[in-house]
Amino acid sequence: MMEQLSPYCAQYTEALEIIGRRWTGAILRALLAGRTRFNEISSTVPGLSDRLLSERLKELEGEGVIDRTVTPSTPVRIEYSLTEKGEALAPVIEAIATWAVRWVGQRADQPA
Amino acid sequence: MMEQLSPYCAQYTEALEIIGRRWTGAILRALLAGRTRFNEISSTVPGLSDRLLSERLKELEGEGVIDRTVTPSTPVRIEYSLTEKGEALAPVIEAIATWAVRWVGQRADQPA
Repeated sequence: MMEQLSPYCAQYTEALEIIGRRWTGAILRALLAGRTRFNEISSTVPGLSDRLLSERLKELEGEGVIDRTVTPSTPVRIEYSLTEKGEALAPVIEAIATWAVRWVGQRADQPA
Repeated sequence: MMEQLSPYCAQYTEALEIIGRRWTGAILRALLAGRTRFNEISSTVPGLSDRLLSERLKELEGEGVIDRTVTPSTPVRIEYSLTEKGEALAPVIEAIATWAVRWVGQRADQPA
């Protein structure tokens, strides 16, 4: 099954570098959940500084995973959304979330 | 859909840190394909040094994702295999591979 994928090793590695970058997975999950403004994304990812969020959003835009829309209102409204390439990451994010819930250790202060 | 997963943000982030670490995804894919010896894994991951492979395998063993079996033959035989937790990563690896094949740019020297 996996065997047949080996010729695509370079793409697979690149894909992991995109989504495995620190904070990127959390940002993508926020966008999949429908958060579109900078502050909305920021508020759902505890610990992520505005500087890093901005950097990650630029990277994702550069990789064609998200679109940035600027509405010239007052104040200016900036929204982010997943492109088709970004939406296609939904099964990846869901598979990771499912694995995490089952296999990654619960904190002592959380119910099982 | 993703909304309901937000309480598990810490586990999700930790999961991404495990599999998103440089080389780890490639090593896991080699193990899913059935490669079990150090040199077999090494030969399927171009560019990965023995030192780093060794380090990553130790990390994955520490995280309970792989088992290390030592057979006291001459020479000693050391094999690695996925634990149940590691096998459970198959859907994640497959989802990433599928996305990568579809969305990550082909190299100019590779057929489409």
